[in-house]
Amino acid sequence: MFASKIRTRYADTGQDGIIHHPSFAIYCEIARLEFFQQLGFDINTLESQKTFCPVVALTIKYLKPLLSLQDVVVQVAVEECSKVRFTLKYLLLREETLVATGTTTHCFVNAAFKPIALPKNLIHLLKDHLA
Amino acid sequence: MFASKIRTRYADTGQDGIIHHPSFAIYCEIARLEFFQQLGFDINTLESQKTFCPVVALTIKYLKPLLSLQDVVVQVAVEECSKVRFTLKYLLLREETLVATGTTTHCFVNAAFKPIALPKNLIHLLKDHLA
Amino acid sequence: MFASKIRTRYADTGQDGIIHHPSFAIYCEIARLEFFQQLGFDINTLESQKTFCPVVALTIKYLKPLLSLQDVVVQVAVEECSKVRFTLKYLLLREETLVATGTTTHCFVNAAFKPIALPKNLIHLLKDHLA
Amino acid sequence: MFASKIRTRYADTGQDGIIHHPSFAIYCEIARLEFFQQLGFDINTLESQKTFCPVVALTIKYLKPLLSLQDVVVQVAVEECSKVRFTLKYLLLREETLVATGTTTHCFVNAAFKPIALPKNLIHLLKDHLA
Repeated sequence: MFASKIRTRYADTGQDGIIHHPSFAIYCEIARLEFFQQLGFDINTLESQKTFCPVVALTIKYLKPLLSLQDVVVQVAVEECSKVRFTLKYLLLREETLVATGTTTHCFVNAAFKPIALPKNLIHLLKDHLA
Repeated sequence: MFASKIRTRYADTGQDGIIHHPSFAIYCEIARLEFFQQLGFDINTLESQKTFCPVVALTIKYLKPLLSLQDVVVQVAVEECSKVRFTLKYLLLREETLVATGTTTHCFVNAAFKPIALPKNLIHLLKDHLA
Repeated sequence: MFASKIRTRYADTGQDGIIHHPSFAIYCEIARLEFFQQLGFDINTLESQKTFCPVVALTIKYLKPLLSLQDVVVQVAVEECSKVRFTLKYLLLREETLVATGTTTHCFVNAAFKPIALPKNLIHLLKDHLA
Repeated sequence: MFASKIRTRYADTGQDGIIHHPSFAIYCEIARLEFFQQLGFDINTLESQKTFCPVVALTIKYLKPLLSLQDVVVQVAVEECSKVRFTLKYLLLREETLVATGTTTHCFVNAAFKPIALPKNLIHLLKDHLA
Protein backbone atom coordinates (compact mmCIF):
# COMPACT_ATOMS: atom_id res chain seq x y z
CA MET A 1 0.00 0.00 0.00
CA PHE A 2 1.29 3.45 -0.88
CA ALA A 3 2.27 5.50 2.16
CA SER A 4 3.37 9.11 2.49
CA LYS A 5 5.10 10.68 5.50
CA ILE A 6 4.06 14.17 6.47
CA ARG A 7 4.80 16.45 9.38
CA THR A 8 2.04 18.57 10.88
CA ARG A 9 2.67 22.31 10.88
CA TYR A 10 2.08 24.77 13.70
CA ALA A 11 0.03 26.68 11.10
CA ASP A 12 -2.34 23.70 10.84
CA THR A 13 -3.50 24.07 14.45
CA GLY A 14 -6.48 25.97 15.82
CA GLN A 15 -7.22 27.78 19.06
CA ASP A 16 -8.38 24.54 20.71
CA GLY A 17 -4.74 23.42 20.63
CA ILE A 18 -5.09 20.57 18.12
CA ILE A 19 -4.73 20.26 14.37
CA HIS A 20 -7.72 21.99 12.77
CA HIS A 21 -10.02 19.43 11.15
CA PRO A 22 -9.79 20.76 7.53
CA SER A 23 -6.00 20.17 7.66
CA PHE A 24 -6.67 16.42 7.55
CA ALA A 25 -8.06 16.93 4.03
CA ILE A 26 -4.79 18.63 3.15
CA TYR A 27 -2.79 15.67 4.51
CA CYS A 28 -4.84 13.32 2.34
CA GLU A 29 -4.16 15.59 -0.63
CA ILE A 30 -0.40 15.56 -0.02
CA ALA A 31 -0.45 11.75 0.05
CA ARG A 32 -2.73 11.54 -2.99
CA LEU A 33 -0.51 13.79 -5.11
CA GLU A 34 2.61 11.79 -4.14
CA PHE A 35 0.74 8.59 -4.99
CA PHE A 36 -0.22 10.05 -8.37
CA GLN A 37 3.33 11.28 -8.97
CA GLN A 38 4.54 7.73 -8.39
CA LEU A 39 1.99 6.46 -10.92
CA GLY A 40 3.39 8.92 -13.47
CA PHE A 41 0.60 11.48 -13.14
CA ASP A 42 2.27 14.59 -11.72
CA ILE A 43 -0.44 17.13 -10.88
CA ASN A 44 1.61 20.11 -12.11
CA THR A 45 2.17 18.42 -15.48
CA LEU A 46 -1.51 17.44 -15.71
CA GLU A 47 -2.73 20.95 -14.90
CA SER A 48 -0.26 22.55 -17.33
CA GLN A 49 -2.05 20.41 -19.96
CA LYS A 50 -5.36 21.91 -18.76
CA THR A 51 -6.56 18.68 -17.17
CA PHE A 52 -7.81 18.96 -13.60
CA CYS A 53 -8.73 16.37 -11.03
CA PRO A 54 -11.20 17.96 -8.61
CA VAL A 55 -12.60 16.39 -5.45
CA VAL A 56 -16.28 15.58 -5.90
CA ALA A 57 -16.78 13.98 -2.49
CA LEU A 58 -14.84 13.93 0.78
CA THR A 59 -15.38 11.99 4.00
CA ILE A 60 -13.19 12.02 7.10
CA LYS A 61 -13.60 10.22 10.43
CA TYR A 62 -11.56 11.76 13.25
CA LEU A 63 -10.50 9.17 15.82
CA LYS A 64 -7.72 10.89 17.79
CA PRO A 65 -6.51 14.50 17.92
CA LEU A 66 -3.23 15.39 16.22
CA LEU A 67 -0.84 18.02 17.58
CA SER A 68 1.58 20.31 15.80
CA LEU A 69 5.01 19.04 14.77
CA GLN A 70 3.94 15.39 14.76
CA ASP A 71 4.93 12.84 12.13
CA VAL A 72 1.98 11.25 10.40
CA VAL A 73 1.89 8.41 7.88
CA VAL A 74 -0.92 8.58 5.33
CA GLN A 75 -1.67 5.28 3.59
CA VAL A 76 -3.54 5.47 0.28
CA ALA A 77 -5.44 2.72 -1.51
CA VAL A 78 -7.99 2.69 -4.33
CA GLU A 79 -11.51 1.83 -3.23
CA GLU A 80 -13.32 2.09 -6.57
CA CYS A 81 -12.53 3.05 -10.13
CA SER A 82 -14.85 3.47 -13.12
CA LYS A 83 -14.24 5.06 -16.52
CA VAL A 84 -15.04 8.53 -15.22
CA ARG A 85 -14.58 8.46 -11.46
CA PHE A 86 -12.45 6.92 -8.72
CA THR A 87 -12.47 6.81 -4.94
CA LEU A 88 -9.36 6.70 -2.77
CA LYS A 89 -9.25 5.54 0.84
CA TYR A 90 -6.86 6.98 3.42
CA LEU A 91 -5.58 5.79 6.78
CA LEU A 92 -3.72 8.37 8.90
CA LEU A 93 -1.40 6.92 11.53
CA ARG A 94 0.74 8.54 14.22
CA GLU A 95 3.28 5.92 15.19
CA GLU A 96 1.11 2.78 15.33
CA THR A 97 -2.12 4.60 16.24
CA LEU A 98 -4.86 5.13 13.68
CA VAL A 99 -5.89 8.79 14.09
CA ALA A 100 -8.28 9.21 11.15
CA THR A 101 -9.70 7.53 8.06
CA GLY A 102 -11.00 9.21 4.96
CA THR A 103 -12.10 8.92 1.37
CA THR A 104 -12.02 11.25 -1.62
CA THR A 105 -13.85 10.76 -4.90
CA HIS A 106 -12.53 12.42 -8.04
CA CYS A 107 -13.24 12.90 -11.69
CA PHE A 108 -11.15 14.44 -14.45
CA VAL A 109 -12.28 17.72 -16.04
CA ASN A 110 -11.07 19.93 -18.88
CA ALA A 111 -10.31 23.66 -18.79
CA ALA A 112 -14.05 24.40 -18.89
CA PHE A 113 -14.50 22.10 -15.87
CA LYS A 114 -16.51 19.62 -17.97
CA PRO A 115 -15.98 15.95 -16.99
CA ILE A 116 -13.79 13.87 -19.29
CA ALA A 117 -12.90 10.17 -19.27
CA LEU A 118 -10.01 9.07 -17.08
CA PRO A 119 -6.82 8.25 -19.02
CA LYS A 120 -6.92 4.49 -19.78
CA ASN A 121 -3.46 3.84 -18.40
CA LEU A 122 -4.44 5.58 -15.16
CA ILE A 123 -7.45 3.26 -14.85
CA HIS A 124 -5.13 0.25 -15.18
CA LEU A 125 -2.73 1.64 -12.60
CA LEU A 126 -5.50 2.48 -10.16
CA LYS A 127 -6.99 -1.02 -10.49
CA ASP A 128 -3.58 -2.41 -9.49
CA HIS A 129 -3.98 -0.54 -6.19
CA LEU A 130 -7.53 -1.63 -5.35
CA ALA A 131 -7.79 -2.15 -1.60
CA MET B 1 -33.47 27.39 8.70
CA PHE B 2 -30.38 29.17 9.95
CA ALA B 3 -28.33 30.75 7.19
CA SER B 4 -24.96 32.46 7.21
CA LYS B 5 -23.54 34.69 4.50
CA ILE B 6 -19.86 34.36 3.75
CA ARG B 7 -17.55 35.72 1.09
CA THR B 8 -14.87 33.50 -0.40
CA ARG B 9 -11.31 34.77 -0.06
CA TYR B 10 -8.61 34.84 -2.70
CA ALA B 11 -6.54 32.96 -0.10
CA ASP B 12 -9.06 30.10 -0.25
CA THR B 13 -8.23 29.31 -3.88
CA GLY B 14 -5.75 26.83 -5.31
CA GLN B 15 -3.61 26.70 -8.42
CA ASP B 16 -6.47 25.13 -10.41
CA GLY B 17 -8.23 28.50 -10.17
CA ILE B 18 -11.13 27.45 -7.95
CA ILE B 19 -11.77 27.45 -4.20
CA HIS B 20 -9.62 24.69 -2.70
CA HIS B 21 -11.86 21.85 -1.45
CA PRO B 22 -10.84 22.01 2.27
CA SER B 23 -12.08 25.63 2.35
CA PHE B 24 -15.65 24.31 2.11
CA ALA B 25 -15.15 22.74 5.56
CA ILE B 26 -14.12 26.19 6.80
CA TYR B 27 -17.28 27.74 5.34
CA CYS B 28 -19.38 25.13 7.16
CA GLU B 29 -17.47 25.96 10.35
CA ILE B 30 -18.14 29.69 10.00
CA ALA B 31 -21.87 28.99 9.61
CA ARG B 32 -21.87 26.45 12.47
CA LEU B 33 -20.21 28.86 14.90
CA GLU B 34 -22.66 31.64 13.99
CA PHE B 35 -25.53 29.19 14.45
CA PHE B 36 -24.15 28.22 17.87
CA GLN B 37 -23.63 31.86 18.81
CA GLN B 38 -27.30 32.49 18.00
CA LEU B 39 -28.25 29.53 20.24
CA GLY B 40 -26.26 31.15 23.07
CA PHE B 41 -23.23 28.87 22.76
CA ASP B 42 -20.38 31.16 21.74
CA ILE B 43 -17.33 29.02 20.92
CA ASN B 44 -14.87 31.45 22.54
CA THR B 45 -16.86 31.42 25.79
CA LEU B 46 -17.19 27.62 25.69
CA GLU B 47 -13.46 27.11 25.09
CA SER B 48 -12.52 29.62 27.80
CA GLN B 49 -14.47 27.26 30.11
CA LYS B 50 -12.33 24.35 28.82
CA THR B 51 -15.17 22.77 26.90
CA PHE B 52 -14.43 21.89 23.30
CA CYS B 53 -16.63 20.74 20.44
CA PRO B 54 -14.46 18.79 18.00
CA VAL B 55 -15.51 17.42 14.62
CA VAL B 56 -15.67 13.62 14.74
CA ALA B 57 -16.91 13.13 11.18
CA LEU B 58 -17.08 15.29 8.07
CA THR B 59 -18.67 14.69 4.66
CA ILE B 60 -18.83 17.10 1.74
CA LYS B 61 -20.28 16.66 -1.75
CA TYR B 62 -18.94 19.17 -4.27
CA LEU B 63 -21.51 19.96 -6.98
CA LYS B 64 -20.18 23.17 -8.60
CA PRO B 65 -16.85 25.00 -8.35
CA LEU B 66 -16.67 28.22 -6.35
CA LEU B 67 -14.43 31.13 -7.32
CA SER B 68 -12.74 33.77 -5.20
CA LEU B 69 -14.69 36.83 -4.03
CA GLN B 70 -18.06 35.13 -4.39
CA ASP B 71 -20.92 35.45 -1.92
CA VAL B 72 -22.08 32.13 -0.54
CA VAL B 73 -25.01 31.35 1.71
CA VAL B 74 -24.53 28.41 4.06
CA GLN B 75 -27.75 26.95 5.46
CA VAL B 76 -27.45 24.86 8.63
CA ALA B 77 -29.95 22.37 10.05
CA VAL B 78 -29.71 19.64 12.68
CA GLU B 79 -29.82 16.11 11.27
CA GLU B 80 -29.48 14.11 14.49
CA CYS B 81 -28.94 14.75 18.17
CA SER B 82 -28.32 12.31 21.01
CA LYS B 83 -27.11 12.90 24.58
CA VAL B 84 -23.45 12.83 23.50
CA ARG B 85 -23.34 13.59 19.81
CA PHE B 86 -25.05 15.64 17.11
CA THR B 87 -24.91 15.92 13.34
CA LEU B 88 -25.42 19.11 11.37
CA LYS B 89 -26.32 19.33 7.71
CA TYR B 90 -25.16 22.13 5.41
CA LEU B 91 -26.33 23.46 2.07
CA LEU B 92 -23.99 25.89 0.31
CA LEU B 93 -25.63 28.16 -2.26
CA ARG B 94 -24.25 30.77 -4.66
CA GLU B 95 -27.20 32.88 -5.65
CA GLU B 96 -29.89 30.22 -6.21
CA THR B 97 -27.47 27.44 -7.18
CA LEU B 98 -26.62 24.62 -4.80
CA VAL B 99 -22.82 24.28 -4.97
CA ALA B 100 -22.18 21.77 -2.18
CA THR B 101 -23.79 19.83 0.64
CA GLY B 102 -22.11 18.59 3.79
CA THR B 103 -22.44 17.17 7.26
CA THR B 104 -20.39 17.40 10.42
CA THR B 105 -20.78 15.25 13.53
CA HIS B 106 -19.60 16.58 16.88
CA CYS B 107 -19.25 15.64 20.51
CA PHE B 108 -18.30 17.74 23.52
CA VAL B 109 -14.99 17.07 25.30
CA ASN B 110 -13.25 18.42 28.38
CA ALA B 111 -9.72 19.82 28.67
CA ALA B 112 -8.32 16.27 28.57
CA PHE B 113 -10.30 15.67 25.34
CA LYS B 114 -12.51 13.10 27.08
CA PRO B 115 -16.14 13.06 25.84
CA ILE B 116 -18.73 14.65 28.11
CA ALA B 117 -22.52 14.88 27.83
CA LEU B 118 -23.97 17.70 25.76
CA PRO B 119 -25.49 20.54 27.84
CA LYS B 120 -29.20 19.73 28.27
CA ASN B 121 -30.38 23.12 27.07
CA LEU B 122 -28.25 22.72 23.94
CA ILE B 123 -29.98 19.40 23.23
CA HIS B 124 -33.36 21.12 23.47
CA LEU B 125 -32.24 23.93 21.20
CA LEU B 126 -30.76 21.57 18.63
CA LYS B 127 -33.94 19.47 18.57
CA ASP B 128 -35.85 22.66 17.71
CA HIS B 129 -33.74 22.87 14.55
CA LEU B 130 -34.08 19.26 13.38
CA ALA B 131 -34.29 19.19 9.58
CA MET C 1 -9.36 56.51 3.03
CA PHE C 2 -10.61 53.19 1.73
CA ALA C 3 -11.68 50.80 4.47
CA SER C 4 -12.78 47.19 4.37
CA LYS C 5 -14.59 45.30 7.10
CA ILE C 6 -13.59 41.72 7.72
CA ARG C 7 -14.44 39.12 10.33
CA THR C 8 -11.72 36.85 11.66
CA ARG C 9 -12.34 33.15 11.22
CA TYR C 10 -11.85 30.38 13.77
CA ALA C 11 -9.71 28.77 11.05
CA ASP C 12 -7.33 31.76 11.20
CA THR C 13 -6.29 30.97 14.79
CA GLY C 14 -3.33 28.95 16.04
CA GLN C 15 -2.73 26.77 19.08
CA ASP C 16 -1.62 29.81 21.12
CA GLY C 17 -5.27 30.93 21.03
CA ILE C 18 -4.84 34.04 18.89
CA ILE C 19 -5.07 34.78 15.18
CA HIS C 20 -2.02 33.22 13.51
CA HIS C 21 0.31 35.93 12.26
CA PRO C 22 0.22 35.04 8.51
CA SER C 23 -3.56 35.61 8.57
CA PHE C 24 -2.90 39.34 8.90
CA ALA C 25 -1.39 39.24 5.39
CA ILE C 26 -4.64 37.64 4.21
CA TYR C 27 -6.68 40.42 5.83
CA CYS C 28 -4.56 43.02 4.01
CA GLU C 29 -5.14 41.09 0.79
CA ILE C 30 -8.92 41.05 1.27
CA ALA C 31 -8.88 44.83 1.76
CA ARG C 32 -6.50 45.37 -1.16
CA LEU C 33 -8.65 43.38 -3.59
CA GLU C 34 -11.79 45.26 -2.49
CA PHE C 35 -9.90 48.53 -2.92
CA PHE C 36 -8.83 47.45 -6.41
CA GLN C 37 -12.35 46.32 -7.27
CA GLN C 38 -13.61 49.78 -6.32
CA LEU C 39 -10.95 51.31 -8.61
CA GLY C 40 -12.27 49.16 -11.47
CA PHE C 41 -9.50 46.57 -11.33
CA ASP C 42 -11.20 43.34 -10.32
CA ILE C 43 -8.53 40.69 -9.69
CA ASN C 44 -10.51 37.88 -11.30
CA THR C 45 -10.97 39.93 -14.48
CA LEU C 46 -7.27 40.93 -14.47
CA GLU C 47 -6.08 37.36 -14.03
CA SER C 48 -8.48 36.05 -16.70
CA GLN C 49 -6.60 38.46 -19.01
CA LYS C 50 -3.32 36.84 -17.90
CA THR C 51 -2.19 39.86 -15.91
CA PHE C 52 -1.05 39.18 -12.35
CA CYS C 53 -0.22 41.47 -9.48
CA PRO C 54 2.18 39.61 -7.16
CA VAL C 55 3.46 40.83 -3.82
CA VAL C 56 7.16 41.67 -4.03
CA ALA C 57 7.55 42.87 -0.45
CA LEU C 58 5.51 42.55 2.74
CA THR C 59 5.92 44.11 6.17
CA ILE C 60 3.63 43.76 9.18
CA LYS C 61 3.92 45.17 12.70
CA TYR C 62 1.78 43.32 15.25
CA LEU C 63 0.63 45.61 18.06
CA LYS C 64 -2.21 43.70 19.74
CA PRO C 65 -3.42 40.10 19.43
CA LEU C 66 -6.63 39.41 17.52
CA LEU C 67 -9.05 36.64 18.49
CA SER C 68 -11.43 34.56 16.39
CA LEU C 69 -14.83 35.95 15.38
CA GLN C 70 -13.75 39.57 15.81
CA ASP C 71 -14.65 42.40 13.46
CA VAL C 72 -11.65 44.18 12.02
CA VAL C 73 -11.48 47.26 9.84
CA VAL C 74 -8.59 47.39 7.38
CA GLN C 75 -7.78 50.86 6.05
CA VAL C 76 -5.81 51.04 2.81
CA ALA C 77 -3.83 53.97 1.41
CA VAL C 78 -1.21 54.31 -1.31
CA GLU C 79 2.28 55.00 0.01
CA GLU C 80 4.20 55.14 -3.27
CA CYS C 81 3.53 54.60 -6.95
CA SER C 82 5.94 54.51 -9.89
CA LYS C 83 5.44 53.31 -13.46
CA VAL C 84 6.20 49.72 -12.53
CA ARG C 85 5.61 49.35 -8.82
CA PHE C 86 3.41 50.58 -6.00
CA THR C 87 3.29 50.26 -2.23
CA LEU C 88 0.12 50.15 -0.17
CA LYS C 89 -0.12 50.89 3.54
CA TYR C 90 -2.59 49.18 5.86
CA LEU C 91 -3.98 49.98 9.29
CA LEU C 92 -5.90 47.21 11.05
CA LEU C 93 -8.31 48.33 13.74
CA ARG C 94 -10.54 46.42 16.16
CA GLU C 95 -13.13 48.92 17.31
CA GLU C 96 -10.98 52.03 17.89
CA THR C 97 -7.78 50.11 18.70
CA LEU C 98 -4.92 49.87 16.20
CA VAL C 99 -3.91 46.20 16.22
CA ALA C 100 -1.42 46.11 13.34
CA THR C 101 0.10 48.10 10.52
CA GLY C 102 1.51 46.78 7.28
CA THR C 103 2.73 47.47 3.78
CA THR C 104 2.74 45.49 0.56
CA THR C 105 4.67 46.34 -2.58
CA HIS C 106 3.45 45.04 -5.93
CA CYS C 107 4.31 44.97 -9.59
CA PHE C 108 2.30 43.74 -12.58
CA VAL C 109 3.50 40.68 -14.49
CA ASN C 110 2.38 38.80 -17.59
CA ALA C 111 1.61 35.08 -17.94
CA ALA C 112 5.36 34.35 -18.01
CA PHE C 113 5.72 36.29 -14.73
CA LYS C 114 7.78 39.00 -16.47
CA PRO C 115 7.22 42.54 -15.11
CA ILE C 116 5.12 44.85 -17.23
CA ALA C 117 4.21 48.54 -16.83
CA LEU C 118 1.25 49.40 -14.62
CA PRO C 119 -1.89 50.44 -16.57
CA LYS C 120 -1.78 54.26 -16.89
CA ASN C 121 -5.28 54.76 -15.55
CA LEU C 122 -4.39 52.66 -12.51
CA ILE C 123 -1.40 54.93 -11.84
CA HIS C 124 -3.71 57.96 -11.90
CA LEU C 125 -6.21 56.28 -9.59
CA LEU C 126 -3.51 55.17 -7.15
CA LYS C 127 -2.03 58.67 -7.03
CA ASP C 128 -5.46 59.95 -6.00
CA HIS C 129 -5.18 57.73 -2.92
CA LEU C 130 -1.66 58.70 -1.85
CA ALA C 131 -1.51 58.79 1.95
CA MET D 1 23.87 28.26 9.78
CA PHE D 2 20.74 26.36 10.70
CA ALA D 3 18.78 25.11 7.68
CA SER D 4 15.43 23.40 7.41
CA LYS D 5 14.09 21.50 4.40
CA ILE D 6 10.44 21.93 3.57
CA ARG D 7 8.21 20.87 0.70
CA THR D 8 5.59 23.26 -0.63
CA ARG D 9 2.02 21.96 -0.54
CA TYR D 10 -0.61 22.17 -3.27
CA ALA D 11 -2.76 23.76 -0.55
CA ASP D 12 -0.23 26.62 -0.29
CA THR D 13 -0.95 27.81 -3.85
CA GLY D 14 -3.38 30.45 -5.05
CA GLN D 15 -5.41 30.91 -8.21
CA ASP D 16 -2.49 32.70 -9.91
CA GLY D 17 -0.74 29.33 -10.00
CA ILE D 18 2.09 30.11 -7.56
CA ILE D 19 2.60 29.70 -3.84
CA HIS D 20 0.40 32.29 -2.10
CA HIS D 21 2.57 34.94 -0.47
CA PRO D 22 1.45 34.39 3.17
CA SER D 23 2.68 30.78 2.90
CA PHE D 24 6.26 32.11 2.93
CA ALA D 25 5.65 33.27 6.51
CA ILE D 26 4.58 29.72 7.33
CA TYR D 27 7.79 28.34 5.80
CA CYS D 28 9.82 30.72 7.98
CA GLU D 29 7.82 29.54 10.99
CA ILE D 30 8.49 25.87 10.24
CA ALA D 31 12.23 26.60 10.07
CA ARG D 32 12.13 28.79 13.19
CA LEU D 33 10.40 26.14 15.28
CA GLU D 34 12.87 23.47 14.14
CA PHE D 35 15.73 25.86 14.97
CA PHE D 36 14.22 26.44 18.43
CA GLN D 37 13.69 22.72 18.94
CA GLN D 38 17.37 22.16 18.18
CA LEU D 39 18.25 24.84 20.78
CA GLY D 40 16.18 22.93 23.34
CA PHE D 41 13.14 25.23 23.19
CA ASP D 42 10.36 23.07 21.80
CA ILE D 43 7.33 25.28 21.15
CA ASN D 44 4.81 22.71 22.37
CA THR D 45 6.68 22.37 25.68
CA LEU D 46 7.01 26.16 26.02
CA GLU D 47 3.31 26.74 25.35
CA SER D 48 2.25 23.95 27.75
CA GLN D 49 4.14 26.01 30.37
CA LYS D 50 2.03 29.04 29.34
CA THR D 51 4.93 30.86 27.70
CA PHE D 52 4.30 32.13 24.19
CA CYS D 53 6.60 33.60 21.56
CA PRO D 54 4.52 35.80 19.28
CA VAL D 55 5.70 37.54 16.13
CA VAL D 56 5.85 41.31 16.67
CA ALA D 57 7.22 42.18 13.22
CA LEU D 58 7.48 40.39 9.89
CA THR D 59 9.19 41.35 6.64
CA ILE D 60 9.44 39.29 3.47
CA LYS D 61 11.01 40.11 0.10
CA TYR D 62 9.76 37.91 -2.73
CA LEU D 63 12.41 37.42 -5.42
CA LYS D 64 11.14 34.42 -7.43
CA PRO D 65 7.81 32.59 -7.50
CA LEU D 66 7.59 29.16 -5.89
CA LEU D 67 5.37 26.39 -7.25
CA SER D 68 3.62 23.52 -5.50
CA LEU D 69 5.54 20.34 -4.63
CA GLN D 70 8.91 22.07 -4.68
CA ASP D 71 11.69 21.48 -2.16
CA VAL D 72 12.79 24.62 -0.38
CA VAL D 73 15.66 25.13 2.06
CA VAL D 74 15.08 27.79 4.70
CA GLN D 75 18.26 29.08 6.38
CA VAL D 76 17.84 30.78 9.75
CA ALA D 77 20.27 33.09 11.53
CA VAL D 78 19.96 35.51 14.44
CA GLU D 79 20.12 39.17 13.44
CA GLU D 80 19.66 40.81 16.85
CA CYS D 81 18.99 39.75 20.41
CA SER D 82 18.25 41.87 23.51
CA LYS D 83 16.92 40.86 26.93
CA VAL D 84 13.32 41.07 25.73
CA ARG D 85 13.33 40.74 21.98
CA PHE D 86 15.14 39.01 19.13
CA THR D 87 15.11 39.16 15.33
CA LEU D 88 15.70 36.19 13.05
CA LYS D 89 16.73 36.39 9.42
CA TYR D 90 15.65 33.87 6.79
CA LEU D 91 16.92 32.92 3.35
CA LEU D 92 14.66 30.71 1.24
CA LEU D 93 16.39 28.74 -1.51
CA ARG D 94 15.09 26.43 -4.22
CA GLU D 95 18.08 24.43 -5.37
CA GLU D 96 20.78 27.14 -5.52
CA THR D 97 18.38 30.00 -6.27
CA LEU D 98 17.46 32.54 -3.60
CA VAL D 99 13.68 32.91 -3.86
CA ALA D 100 12.95 35.08 -0.82
CA THR D 101 14.44 36.69 2.26
CA GLY D 102 12.68 37.59 5.46
CA THR D 103 12.89 38.61 9.08
CA THR D 104 10.71 38.02 12.13
CA THR D 105 10.99 39.81 15.47
CA HIS D 106 9.70 38.11 18.60
CA CYS D 107 9.23 38.63 22.30
CA PHE D 108 8.17 36.21 25.02
CA VAL D 109 4.81 36.69 26.74
CA ASN D 110 2.96 35.00 29.59
CA ALA D 111 -0.58 33.58 29.59
CA ALA D 112 -1.97 37.13 29.85
CA PHE D 113 0.09 38.07 26.77
CA LYS D 114 2.26 40.44 28.86
CA PRO D 115 5.94 40.62 27.76
CA ILE D 116 8.44 38.77 29.91
CA ALA D 117 12.24 38.56 29.76
CA LEU D 118 13.76 35.97 27.43
CA PRO D 119 15.19 32.93 29.24
CA LYS D 120 18.90 33.68 29.90
CA ASN D 121 20.11 30.43 28.36
CA LEU D 122 18.11 31.18 25.22
CA ILE D 123 19.84 34.57 24.94
CA HIS D 124 23.24 32.81 25.11
CA LEU D 125 22.19 30.27 22.50
CA LEU D 126 20.78 32.93 20.16
CA LYS D 127 23.97 35.01 20.43
CA ASP D 128 25.91 31.94 19.28
CA HIS D 129 23.90 32.08 16.05
CA LEU D 130 24.29 35.79 15.32
CA ALA D 131 24.62 36.28 11.56
